[in-house]
Amino acid sequence: MNGEQLLKLLRGVSTGDVPPAEAVKRLKHLPFEDIGFAKMDGHRHLRNGFSEVIYCKGKTKEQIGEIALRMYARKMNVLGTRCEGPAGAYLKKKIRKLSYDPISRTFALKAHPVKKAKGRVAVLCAGTADLFAAEEAKRTLEFFGVTSEGFYDIGVAGIHRLLSQIKRLDEFDVLIAVAGMEGALPSVLGGLTGKPIVAVPTSVGYGSNFGGVTPLLAMLNSCSEGITVVNIDNGFGAACAALRMISVK
Amino acid sequence: MNGEQLLKLLRGVSTGDVPPAEAVKRLKHLPFEDIGFAKMDGHRHLRNGFSEVIYCKGKTKEQIGEIALRMYARKMNVLGTRCEGPAGAYLKKKIRKLSYDPISRTFALKAHPVKKAKGRVAVLCAGTADLFAAEEAKRTLEFFGVTSEGFYDIGVAGIHRLLSQIKRLDEFDVLIAVAGMEGALPSVLGGLTGKPIVAVPTSVGYGSNFGGVTPLLAMLNSCSEGITVVNIDNGFGAACAALRMISVK
Amino acid sequence: MNGEQLLKLLRGVSTGDVPPAEAVKRLKHLPFEDIGFAKMDGHRHLRNGFSEVIYCKGKTKEQIGEIALRMYARKMNVLGTRCEGPAGAYLKKKIRKLSYDPISRTFALKAHPVKKAKGRVAVLCAGTADLFAAEEAKRTLEFFGVTSEGFYDIGVAGIHRLLSQIKRLDEFDVLIAVAGMEGALPSVLGGLTGKPIVAVPTSVGYGSNFGGVTPLLAMLNSCSEGITVVNIDNGFGAACAALRMISVK
Amino acid sequence: MNGEQLLKLLRGVSTGDVPPAEAVKRLKHLPFEDIGFAKMDGHRHLRNGFSEVIYCKGKTKEQIGEIALRMYARKMNVLGTRCEGPAGAYLKKKIRKLSYDPISRTFALKAHPVKKAKGRVAVLCAGTADLFAAEEAKRTLEFFGVTSEGFYDIGVAGIHRLLSQIKRLDEFDVLIAVAGMEGALPSVLGGLTGKPIVAVPTSVGYGSNFGGVTPLLAMLNSCSEGITVVNIDNGFGAACAALRMISVK
Amino acid sequence: MNGEQLLKLLRGVSTGDVPPAEAVKRLKHLPFEDIGFAKMDGHRHLRNGFSEVIYCKGKTKEQIGEIALRMYARKMNVLGTRCEGPAGAYLKKKIRKLSYDPISRTFALKAHPVKKAKGRVAVLCAGTADLFAAEEAKRTLEFFGVTSEGFYDIGVAGIHRLLSQIKRLDEFDVLIAVAGMEGALPSVLGGLTGKPIVAVPTSVGYGSNFGGVTPLLAMLNSCSEGITVVNIDNGFGAACAALRMISVK
Amino acid sequence: MNGEQLLKLLRGVSTGDVPPAEAVKRLKHLPFEDIGFAKMDGHRHLRNGFSEVIYCKGKTKEQIGEIALRMYARKMNVLGTRCEGPAGAYLKKKIRKLSYDPISRTFALKAHPVKKAKGRVAVLCAGTADLFAAEEAKRTLEFFGVTSEGFYDIGVAGIHRLLSQIKRLDEFDVLIAVAGMEGALPSVLGGLTGKPIVAVPTSVGYGSNFGGVTPLLAMLNSCSEGITVVNIDNGFGAACAALRMISVK
Amino acid sequence: MNGEQLLKLLRGVSTGDVPPAEAVKRLKHLPFEDIGFAKMDGHRHLRNGFSEVIYCKGKTKEQIGEIALRMYARKMNVLGTRCEGPAGAYLKKKIRKLSYDPISRTFALKAHPVKKAKGRVAVLCAGTADLFAAEEAKRTLEFFGVTSEGFYDIGVAGIHRLLSQIKRLDEFDVLIAVAGMEGALPSVLGGLTGKPIVAVPTSVGYGSNFGGVTPLLAMLNSCSEGITVVNIDNGFGAACAALRMISVK
Amino acid sequence: MNGEQLLKLLRGVSTGDVPPAEAVKRLKHLPFEDIGFAKMDGHRHLRNGFSEVIYCKGKTKEQIGEIALRMYARKMNVLGTRCEGPAGAYLKKKIRKLSYDPISRTFALKAHPVKKAKGRVAVLCAGTADLFAAEEAKRTLEFFGVTSEGFYDIGVAGIHRLLSQIKRLDEFDVLIAVAGMEGALPSVLGGLTGKPIVAVPTSVGYGSNFGGVTPLLAMLNSCSEGITVVNIDNGFGAACAALRMISVK
Repeated sequence: MNGEQLLKLLRGVSTGDVPPAEAVKRLKHLPFEDIGFAKMDGHRHLRNGFSEVIYCKGKTKEQIGEIALRMYARKMNVLGTRCEGPAGAYLKKKIRKLSYDPISRTFALKAHPVKKAKGRVAVLCAGTADLFAAEEAKRTLEFFGVTSEGFYDIGVAGIHRLLSQIKRLDEFDVLIAVAGMEGALPSVLGGLTGKPIVAVPTSVGYGSNFGGVTPLLAMLNSCSEGITVVNIDNGFGAACAALRMISVK
Repeated sequence: MNGEQLLKLLRGVSTGDVPPAEAVKRLKHLPFEDIGFAKMDGHRHLRNGFSEVIYCKGKTKEQIGEIALRMYARKMNVLGTRCEGPAGAYLKKKIRKLSYDPISRTFALKAHPVKKAKGRVAVLCAGTADLFAAEEAKRTLEFFGVTSEGFYDIGVAGIHRLLSQIKRLDEFDVLIAVAGMEGALPSVLGGLTGKPIVAVPTSVGYGSNFGGVTPLLAMLNSCSEGITVVNIDNGFGAACAALRMISVK
Repeated sequence: MNGEQLLKLLRGVSTGDVPPAEAVKRLKHLPFEDIGFAKMDGHRHLRNGFSEVIYCKGKTKEQIGEIALRMYARKMNVLGTRCEGPAGAYLKKKIRKLSYDPISRTFALKAHPVKKAKGRVAVLCAGTADLFAAEEAKRTLEFFGVTSEGFYDIGVAGIHRLLSQIKRLDEFDVLIAVAGMEGALPSVLGGLTGKPIVAVPTSVGYGSNFGGVTPLLAMLNSCSEGITVVNIDNGFGAACAALRMISVK
Repeated sequence: MNGEQLLKLLRGVSTGDVPPAEAVKRLKHLPFEDIGFAKMDGHRHLRNGFSEVIYCKGKTKEQIGEIALRMYARKMNVLGTRCEGPAGAYLKKKIRKLSYDPISRTFALKAHPVKKAKGRVAVLCAGTADLFAAEEAKRTLEFFGVTSEGFYDIGVAGIHRLLSQIKRLDEFDVLIAVAGMEGALPSVLGGLTGKPIVAVPTSVGYGSNFGGVTPLLAMLNSCSEGITVVNIDNGFGAACAALRMISVK
Repeated sequence: MNGEQLLKLLRGVSTGDVPPAEAVKRLKHLPFEDIGFAKMDGHRHLRNGFSEVIYCKGKTKEQIGEIALRMYARKMNVLGTRCEGPAGAYLKKKIRKLSYDPISRTFALKAHPVKKAKGRVAVLCAGTADLFAAEEAKRTLEFFGVTSEGFYDIGVAGIHRLLSQIKRLDEFDVLIAVAGMEGALPSVLGGLTGKPIVAVPTSVGYGSNFGGVTPLLAMLNSCSEGITVVNIDNGFGAACAALRMISVK
Repeated sequence: MNGEQLLKLLRGVSTGDVPPAEAVKRLKHLPFEDIGFAKMDGHRHLRNGFSEVIYCKGKTKEQIGEIALRMYARKMNVLGTRCEGPAGAYLKKKIRKLSYDPISRTFALKAHPVKKAKGRVAVLCAGTADLFAAEEAKRTLEFFGVTSEGFYDIGVAGIHRLLSQIKRLDEFDVLIAVAGMEGALPSVLGGLTGKPIVAVPTSVGYGSNFGGVTPLLAMLNSCSEGITVVNIDNGFGAACAALRMISVK
Repeated sequence: MNGEQLLKLLRGVSTGDVPPAEAVKRLKHLPFEDIGFAKMDGHRHLRNGFSEVIYCKGKTKEQIGEIALRMYARKMNVLGTRCEGPAGAYLKKKIRKLSYDPISRTFALKAHPVKKAKGRVAVLCAGTADLFAAEEAKRTLEFFGVTSEGFYDIGVAGIHRLLSQIKRLDEFDVLIAVAGMEGALPSVLGGLTGKPIVAVPTSVGYGSNFGGVTPLLAMLNSCSEGITVVNIDNGFGAACAALRMISVK
Repeated sequence: MNGEQLLKLLRGVSTGDVPPAEAVKRLKHLPFEDIGFAKMDGHRHLRNGFSEVIYCKGKTKEQIGEIALRMYARKMNVLGTRCEGPAGAYLKKKIRKLSYDPISRTFALKAHPVKKAKGRVAVLCAGTADLFAAEEAKRTLEFFGVTSEGFYDIGVAGIHRLLSQIKRLDEFDVLIAVAGMEGALPSVLGGLTGKPIVAVPTSVGYGSNFGGVTPLLAMLNSCSEGITVVNIDNGFGAACAALRMISVK
């Protein structure tokens, strides 16, 4: 029952065609979404955006292609994440307008231009091995119309590289700090700036790194106040978090 | 700029070719390793704020009292966290102006009024057992001049309580979602709003809860995009993160 | 807005006092629970039952007493779980009608008789040290009107004790199997009967038992098909699961 | 010693050929199964059913084919689980009557029609990536003659999808809730219905999901009372548990 | 039905009072323990011995005293393990014949002399802090009539102490090697002797020792072939294992 | 310096050719093994035996073949463990006398007949999937001249299969119990017999089995006294432990 | 048999009182330490030093006092670690010359002056809460005659504090870096200096810090090359490691 | 020195009161935040050395080749670590002067001879399976001009092999002890020598070895004082640590 149907029912009450008690009964048994949708308006735009994303892992390249095209046919912009090389090659070949990026393992297929968002996001990266997650964040931001800039290879073992960029970093609205190994970058960064920091641990490392558990724990235990953390390798999630934050603006 | 270039610059000053003020300017804008201090100005205000906080755990009540008074004497506002009951009682007795809150285990001692911050933060809480962390967040926000409101006991087992508040929640700038047990609150919330969400896992639970590990992991793996997470029971950290986020405004 | 208010609104529409469009608007902005509750009827009895339970851990004895009395005043039956000895003693003294059981650490306070449920539940227990969880299950079942019987000290190290009871066990509708240490009881039991089995791991053990993790994992990995598991020491949860299962009847 | 031999011995006693004391002695030394089998009758039907299942993992396709055919020759219905694609293709080719399902990785080979069971089971699924486990549950139920229906893609990030189905879900006897990521579905579901819920965590996720540990822990720590849990990805086990539960009927 | 009742039944068959077919029927439905106990003769002595043991943890001192006296009244020897100091003091005072040992936290109460066992067991101990577990093993062995000798403080950091005792150690039938910290003793020992070695990890250590997990893992991964391991701090279990092994003699 | 050289030195002292002080000096600087070997005699036979074993994992097939042939040339019997199929095929082809077993992934190459050992070992196995580890134990025992017998597929879900074999099992000197999943077999077995039991957890299982961690923990926490445990999948180690135990005989 | 006794034996050979063959026999059966000690000379000084240390945890204050006095009577210097307050108070009262330090929980009792060692060690400390471990390192160094200096409260959240001390730190031979929380200090330090760095993780933190596991893992995964790590809270061990390192000098 | 003071100093230069060279000196010795670069000189050589290392994991062979050549073109010596076989073969073919070692998976490309370092390092190895990490350490040391020697296959199961080498080992400055399995080597070694010991756990083992976690924990919990530890399989890091240590000389 949508708004129109609801109005019709109430008009029936108004004209006496539907007795009030009967209307109460019908209203009580309506599926939730018919009455409740009004409450969801506030977040619609955002949710729509996110629902344009295909998480490719565990899907065949044919399935991905089909879903992407179906969405595109509905005039939706489509972002694909965790899309490995062979699937990327297949998609590029099959869908001419689609652009694929092998480092971030993402693809984008745009049915219409994206409105520029107001905020700016800096994506920092401790080592070149962490690039895949940093680029996933950057590509996601770009997809949603957010300007971003990468500051790569500024890990804490060469602290001067980070220090020399602090002034520029403070010009951004949100900082995404990507790091594997011991994940110390967000802690140092957090002591140097008051901007929101989204820390992304990566699975870069070996042995007692445990596939990113070490930087994840380090980031959660940061001695710098107010650092927030997303899942291991989750550059996409960090970008979404940044998106939420710049909406405050 | 290496030693030779520095010497050359100073010779320029010596010969009058470079006015002293110009030399100061150049030195100040050198890459950090040459003259770094200037770059730290941008974040000073924030850092000062955080340095007004005393983490009381592991300190005797006498030590806490002494530190608080010394800071107060320097006209600083002081926030104490993880301050257990007996220490709280001692401090209240010793320092008349100090206010202590046993639920959040925090105290505040204000030397001067706090400037009201622009943003508003909602603090959600899954169960009454999680109150201690939610209140720590609220008291921290209050200390830093941020208006906040509590939405307690709206866990996912009674989903209608959360749904009935969504519209009001969307009027806040940042949402802090506190939950123990299985930590599902931020996930459901994230699907209902596009606001920034800081998830705080708590140690509330037993057995395979592992002192908060279960909600921590659940929050990091949220199927709702863009949820960020802080350490277990870290209401203070969540407030600091919210503080950073509303600075975007 | 409850059912009566809804009727009143619709009567207003019916009499022309409220224009239909205005009614649509009001209905759309109602808090969810006002319209939506009808959908929840199916589970009301169960949920009400569960909401009569006070989880005492982390509450002071005074708080527990106050909550219990307030619920009792509303003619509710009250079950308290995880209520330690001193609180139990306090409550018994304060509320004459309340009965406290130190082994299961539960109390019951009944404002009205409970309707007898149809099913019967057997509670098995590997060792005497696991009694606390088994009794928590039994007391919970009793509170909700379910007949149960205890079969204690029939662990797998003395397999003949279990075998000699199998025939009797098959006369029950649901079997709750409580075990610490290596948690093998549900596996052996599962091979001997086709009844639903709810396995409850306990924290009984030491060293590499890890507070019940070992029996928890053992039960989840049972080679007997169709064993289901609840949290460590969660006798209450197992009873609730059994309650759900006998509702199938 | 089987029933006949036992009768013969007792006839010897009856005719005086075997003195009673001698008979006592012989009986005491009988292997267990000769006397004891009677006690196992109660669960025979169920166990037979389960013993018709081949767990294919770690077996060659030739071994699986051979076992399946041998069982089929004895007029048994055969269910194969964890049977990967290549083995499935081989089996389908080799055994014409066998049906293979690549999503659930199961095959069924029926020597005789299955008797319809009384209960009905709903299988819920948080995301499409969890389908493999949900379908394993559905195919297992079908094999054992239980009617089931799938409710897919109703994860908690889009809570309205779940809410809109609650009324229909309440018409089933048992609910199987399958979810990876943070595994919040059973918690929300448990607050909306009083039916038995079997929660199946899946290995869907990455990073700190730890191959399904996160949803497993979340489900074990559910704030909704009476949720029971099976092993990660264990759709088959959940179906068996449901089978046990509807036997209560 | 015990032996006498069985004889009576068979006499009824013998006299014609009970027809053979009727006797078959009755025998088939007997509880297991009535017929089956004969099969357990082989392990009776051992099991009886073990059933004389009271695991005191989680029992009140009054309960322990009562159980011990009841067993003693049945002419049983009683061994108590994990019996803390205050309980030990209480028991010694209450039961004159009982001997309590505070280091191993065991007590013994003997109703009759124990038969000397044939084998001899050496108990090695890496550090003095591990004594409690080593002494638990020694006291258990003594209780069951096994001669043992302690070789204490011969950890691997002072390897010469171990080497100087190897010849003497080889005169024992079984070696129990107790060690906390990194648990290297059994590995070195295993390379020096072909005797059976039961390794007992202890919870002695701190930090990344994780309450004995480190030596437990080290012992399970020993590069010396044929080392077997028991639970952390389980001196009692190691003694029982040694008891099983010398029964081979 | 061997025994002869030592004698020669002392004769030099005796004849006055070597002054006593000079002899002291020489003796003090001897490498350890020259003087110390006497102490190692006791374990020589055992250690030699074990040193005949090649752990093939991480070695190329060519390396394995070369090592085996070199040992064989020295008249040593050679046992290879963890030797995967392709390497096994290569070895069989290259060395005619070598016998390879694909299930246990072992090979044996005998330069001389093995002396029959006195004891007998039973190898029990919970499921057919655990065969690889059980057979590794059996082949190792055979290599060292120990008679063994396999009792396969007697897991606890079909407890009667185990019970019907107990009498026969008690005729062996040592029992090796191999089990994956929840690893309950040794616990049940331990309650039925007083023989030494070596428990071997296997990596058979999935999800929360964690590659054998679950049965490992279950076995370490057995409620049956005196069970000892080896590493996951370590059939070879269990056989070595049995070898040590029958040496007690 | 010490050096003198050996000389005596050889003199017996020399004079003909002991036949050479008899001497061979006696020598072969000597306990290892009698002949072998010569090989241990190299490390004697160090080992002696370490054996002067009493690890007080798990010992009563009376036991500690007795051991300390016995060692003192033999003219040994004594260092006590992990000595809690009450024991410290007891010892100070009982032994006048003993000095106790409550922060590091160490005591020292000197029978003779310690020779000054050549090297100098800097002890860095991330937060004041880590002081206990830093001071344990300093007091241990002092006990062994090594000059050390503390650099406290220079954690990475205020990076400038560390940077301003680098020049001075480079004047030390070894750096001990103590840190809890996320343990990032050694990583940053390692990028700023080429000196040996011993990283000490502490148990300072809460929630997902897991009692020091987080900084331990972070330090092991440092992106700065050549950082070495000791156990959690092990200030004593770090000092011993530094002691070994300055012996290189 | 703040801005004003800096201006004043420069005015002094301007007026001739302060000679330029004097100003350079003063600026260089300012606290770091004013002019920091000077402070980094001390460690420059070391850092440069480390920055000559390419961590090859996660890079394509073409990328590695390009980076190596670019560095070589700048007259840098290049060390590649974690360079797998196929990449090694490619590099050797492409760059004639490059030497590749398949065991350590390292390559070296030297643009100029390396200056011999003063110290000597011994690399010990418990089993041949650990060689890859030991050789990574050796090759790294060689690259940085440090003489090293390998002592392989001296694990603790054959303790005499280690004992016979102790005297020779004491002639080295630093000992690197590499071990998998239970990782006991450093503990035994630490009791026999006072030299600095860097312990390297390896991932050699299976089952409860957890990819090297067991030896890692064992080494961190060593009962020998002053053992320091690096990450699992981190032979490179151990060599860097040794490099730092011999710089003390």
